[in-house]
Amino acid sequence: MQIYLPVMKKNEIETNWNDRLNVGIIGLGLMGASFALALKQIFKNYLITGWDIKPDNAQKALELNIVDSISDNMKDIFSLDLIILAVPVKGIVNIISQISDIAPTSTIIDLGSTKKPIIRAVPPEYRLNFIAAHPMAGTEKSGPEAALPDLYKNKVMVVCNIEESGEKQKEFAEYIFKKMQMNIVYMDAEEHDKHAAVISHLPHAISFSIANSIMKQENPESITALAGGGFRDVSRIAKTPPDMWIDIFSQNKDNILNSIALFKKELEQCEEMIKNDDLTELKNWINRANTLHHIL
Amino acid sequence: MQIYLPVMKKNEIETNWNDRLNVGIIGLGLMGASFALALKQIFKNYLITGWDIKPDNAQKALELNIVDSISDNMKDIFSLDLIILAVPVKGIVNIISQISDIAPTSTIIDLGSTKKPIIRAVPPEYRLNFIAAHPMAGTEKSGPEAALPDLYKNKVMVVCNIEESGEKQKEFAEYIFKKMQMNIVYMDAEEHDKHAAVISHLPHAISFSIANSIMKQENPESITALAGGGFRDVSRIAKTPPDMWIDIFSQNKDNILNSIALFKKELEQCEEMIKNDDLTELKNWINRANTLHHIL
Repeated sequence: MQIYLPVMKKNEIETNWNDRLNVGIIGLGLMGASFALALKQIFKNYLITGWDIKPDNAQKALELNIVDSISDNMKDIFSLDLIILAVPVKGIVNIISQISDIAPTSTIIDLGSTKKPIIRAVPPEYRLNFIAAHPMAGTEKSGPEAALPDLYKNKVMVVCNIEESGEKQKEFAEYIFKKMQMNIVYMDAEEHDKHAAVISHLPHAISFSIANSIMKQENPESITALAGGGFRDVSRIAKTPPDMWIDIFSQNKDNILNSIALFKKELEQCEEMIKNDDLTELKNWINRANTLHHIL
Repeated sequence: MQIYLPVMKKNEIETNWNDRLNVGIIGLGLMGASFALALKQIFKNYLITGWDIKPDNAQKALELNIVDSISDNMKDIFSLDLIILAVPVKGIVNIISQISDIAPTSTIIDLGSTKKPIIRAVPPEYRLNFIAAHPMAGTEKSGPEAALPDLYKNKVMVVCNIEESGEKQKEFAEYIFKKMQMNIVYMDAEEHDKHAAVISHLPHAISFSIANSIMKQENPESITALAGGGFRDVSRIAKTPPDMWIDIFSQNKDNILNSIALFKKELEQCEEMIKNDDLTELKNWINRANTLHHIL
């Protein structure tokens, strides 16, 4: 890897966001590689270096021109101006504990799906450098070849506990997210983890469950031959590979178990109403479900 | 309504499928109105008459040129060459019991989502006229204004117990479905109702449940502000209005309760693995869920 020195000096960070900056992306899967593509499209002068735990992924990202160079030593990335952490949650916690020798002006943005365990792991001496973000974006695909330059466009970026980040880092991160046409939502990390359990983690648990309940049937092919749009929608995210999800399910355990319990209560109510031919109540219950779309 | 007499005579049915035929659509919601639009696009000579239990819906369909004329008496429709039943399942059962004085060449196609209760309701003297079909198509929208000429294109049309239908009716229905570019799947009605419970009815029960579990939270808007594609997919069909669904849930009760039980077993397994930090097993379970997409 070619080693770049940080370009930004303290107090001039605001003047040079469009200049040549050295960016490092740790994790070149769908999220990291798409972030790199978006940055390249917007900031023509940025030099992007990538690192991935799988050397093949890094090589692939380089071949696809997603990054300008790759490194075989993750610690090289720590010396850069902007560092994006785009690995599964436990990986982020692990990487954060290894951070050292970063420039005071450096900005580290993590894209992890749970925020409380990550923020707790940030060493206090680097807390100002750190931006805890969670983009509500993704597809069921994975790897650098699945990267999309517009993956983040018009999506929500949740930014947590921003008051603990440095002023310059906050401004820089906001500048990037706005340039990417994302909608920034500020939130307390604890509240984020609760909400994400309901809005993102629960749908995955459900989708994996419906896929498994089909695959256990005697002749799943004859069932899926009938699949219409409704089933395809509900089962799409069941394609998501496990590595990211076992991390999320374990890191956000209590909130997820709570959201599964609330969902099961509703499903069991539905079950009871069908069992008892309680069609008036069932109609009211479906009518209430319909109201979700007034706020979505 | 202008009363058309059946154009088709016995034994000439195969020669005139592209001639001027009189078609009646009973039920001008999303399904019936989209079927009318598809027929109009393909068979320029067909004269389509519509009837709906809500006169406003019928009027709207006429204004939108979805049908050529409307009737205020459902029984007028029975005299036509081709009759499409596109109302909720209980309505179909009810209408079938009123059928009388249809021409021996007449073809009646029902589009209901459960097939066993419908077939059971067909009077034996009209069984040859009857084609029991279930299109695996739809959107979360409703009413004639939601109609799409391509709603059925490239979708599966399940045709049940076809050996009980008349040869000419079978050929005519197949001709229409193929012209609509649908993929016909033949199935026993009992098997259909079991499979439809898993692939279509269960996803709706799940989607209604997740919508209700969100709407019961203290501040649902702050949760849905974070909604990404996964949640939008899983909750899309929760927008479907109740009338059709309370019928389906009650008509296919045993199969649906069975499919909910199988799904719950998987979800509870997921819950247990998260609770016990059984991450290796959880990874295997997600890997198994991923395999759905080998057959979908």
